[in-house]
Amino acid sequence: MSELRDQCDIRIGFPRGDEGSPARWLRTIADYLENEDVTDEIYLSGKLAEKLETYCADVLGKPAALWFPTGTMAQAAAALIHAQATGRKSIALHPTSHLVLHEDDGVRELLKLDVAIMGEWPRVIDARDVQTLDDDPACAIIELPQRHNGGLCPDWETLTGAVAEIHARGARAHMDGARLWSTRDALGGRSYAEICAPFDSIYASFYKEIGALGGAILAGDEAIVEQARLWRHRQGGLLIRGWPMIADALRRLPAVIEAMPACIGAAREIAGRIRETGFQIEPWPVQTSMFHVRLPLTKAEFAAHRDAIARDTKVWIGGSGWELDARPGMSLEIAVDAQLAAADRGRLVAAFALLKRRIDA
Amino acid sequence: MSELRDQCDIRIGFPRGDEGSPARWLRTIADYLENEDVTDEIYLSGKLAEKLETYCADVLGKPAALWFPTGTMAQAAAALIHAQATGRKSIALHPTSHLVLHEDDGVRELLKLDVAIMGEWPRVIDARDVQTLDDDPACAIIELPQRHNGGLCPDWETLTGAVAEIHARGARAHMDGARLWSTRDALGGRSYAEICAPFDSIYASFYKEIGALGGAILAGDEAIVEQARLWRHRQGGLLIRGWPMIADALRRLPAVIEAMPACIGAAREIAGRIRETGFQIEPWPVQTSMFHVRLPLTKAEFAAHRDAIARDTKVWIGGSGWELDARPGMSLEIAVDAQLAAADRGRLVAAFALLKRRIDA
Repeated sequence: MSELRDQCDIRIGFPRGDEGSPARWLRTIADYLENEDVTDEIYLSGKLAEKLETYCADVLGKPAALWFPTGTMAQAAAALIHAQATGRKSIALHPTSHLVLHEDDGVRELLKLDVAIMGEWPRVIDARDVQTLDDDPACAIIELPQRHNGGLCPDWETLTGAVAEIHARGARAHMDGARLWSTRDALGGRSYAEICAPFDSIYASFYKEIGALGGAILAGDEAIVEQARLWRHRQGGLLIRGWPMIADALRRLPAVIEAMPACIGAAREIAGRIRETGFQIEPWPVQTSMFHVRLPLTKAEFAAHRDAIARDTKVWIGGSGWELDARPGMSLEIAVDAQLAAADRGRLVAAFALLKRRIDA
Repeated sequence: MSELRDQCDIRIGFPRGDEGSPARWLRTIADYLENEDVTDEIYLSGKLAEKLETYCADVLGKPAALWFPTGTMAQAAAALIHAQATGRKSIALHPTSHLVLHEDDGVRELLKLDVAIMGEWPRVIDARDVQTLDDDPACAIIELPQRHNGGLCPDWETLTGAVAEIHARGARAHMDGARLWSTRDALGGRSYAEICAPFDSIYASFYKEIGALGGAILAGDEAIVEQARLWRHRQGGLLIRGWPMIADALRRLPAVIEAMPACIGAAREIAGRIRETGFQIEPWPVQTSMFHVRLPLTKAEFAAHRDAIARDTKVWIGGSGWELDARPGMSLEIAVDAQLAAADRGRLVAAFALLKRRIDA
């Protein structure tokens, strides 16, 4: 993290964490652990791990759940389980999928599975995308919401139509629910359990949106979770001590889930006001707690503007900027957590107005 | 961990940790982090990760090193790298290897590599074991010391002879150095760098012997470490935050390395006195900071004795008991860290004398 960023008192960024310094963060977790009265839980078993896994299974409406150190590992386990169950070798992925863009081709190189691209960059997956796949895949992964489209969500009929088609092809449906926590509103106010019901397995992150120290959950039926336990061991995921991450997720989950509607509301309001300064927002209207600001800049050009604005205003408009799709310009990712929702909106919007003036100058 | 164990003030056990409760442990790491003045380092890059990797590369005498969340993952990365480099598909392993006994057959199931068993259970690997392998492997893994023989070490000539033979077959030599830290004395007082020199890659643990919160290191030349970085990502090992584990390893490594000769001395003395109570010790003489006490018991029988002794004496003689080899009875693993080295020897030995009386009764 840059020093300039640290000097700002309003910061757009990923990943988030509102515990101050690393030392302060560990002390906050220590306070939580003291209240929970736990001993040194090793190899991911014990009271805390069970509590988090039970909590997630309940919230996601599945019989069982298993903690993983990372989402990459959790989704790899899911892919391996579904490949073994179906006897098939390919995984159908949207072109914006994390597994396509951000995992160094681990699906092919490590898992020895094939990738079938399904659907098109700027839009969500529908039944037709599944129907037109050349071969029957072992599983299809649907990301809810689609991060690289600024949190785009399908409507409920499109989602369930796509999942039904996956099942009709004899494939398993897996949800990349890294940011699942912010999708309830976009999916008609349904509960997490209702949203997860059509899926065979679900991964959700504990640091994206939740802001915990790390870790992820994989939920599904008991057979899937038992197999996931075996794969987690083979994958080298059986950390001797996951309890610092597990405790932080337990501590934060209920509060973040409760604050989510307010964060989505704030995201809509902030996006609307940035739009008034002259920028295009994607998706519009905003669907979750995140959105993109389209900028006619390269990432390097943006970084220069951002640093100058940080110096002048102590507002860090940085974070993640993407030049991934074929269009010119970039997408600036804005994810609104409780901290950003509570920040001075006037100063935040003024920083974007300044960016607009600098671009137009 | 059992309540009975927690009530004992002398405890033989694995894994170790002398920081008291989880909460106290995190506060100790927080104190260290405050003195280091670090910010939130994400995705395993930053000052702390670099400091630990540089420290390990220096100590192990290799150009580069990379942190891993677990040893299972670090060794899987090494196996994949060596398989790719040699274009071969098998890994030669001793029958007591962690990869044979404790990883749910990940080598075959996940890495899609074959296992060639090399050598015999009760003794170390020598050149002849490598010569008599049916096929040329991608790499051979030598564990230093051999955990399931109570810390058995080859002498220097046997070790270098075996490694030379591995290289003569066009294979890579990888060290499973989980407990490498305690081998200097057994290998003629050589430095860690001298011991690692014959090997292409080395894994060492930060919790076995070192007693840190978790994590592992993989060391080798720069090409190997760059490839390991790629595999670590594909394996799902790129934790968003490894710094609690990294900081704890940094904090403990120099102190544990410095205390190691005293721990080895204490292990020898404790083993000698337990032997005087009538038990067989393996290996004899003791070579590292660990050893085995041979017991004419099943693990269940041992557990009953251990619990009774704990109630009577507040000494926990438990820990890890192994019934893995073909012989009747079991091996009780005793690993001597600074805490156990400083414990009341008289009470510790008296507990074993009591065990002997109970067995003979």
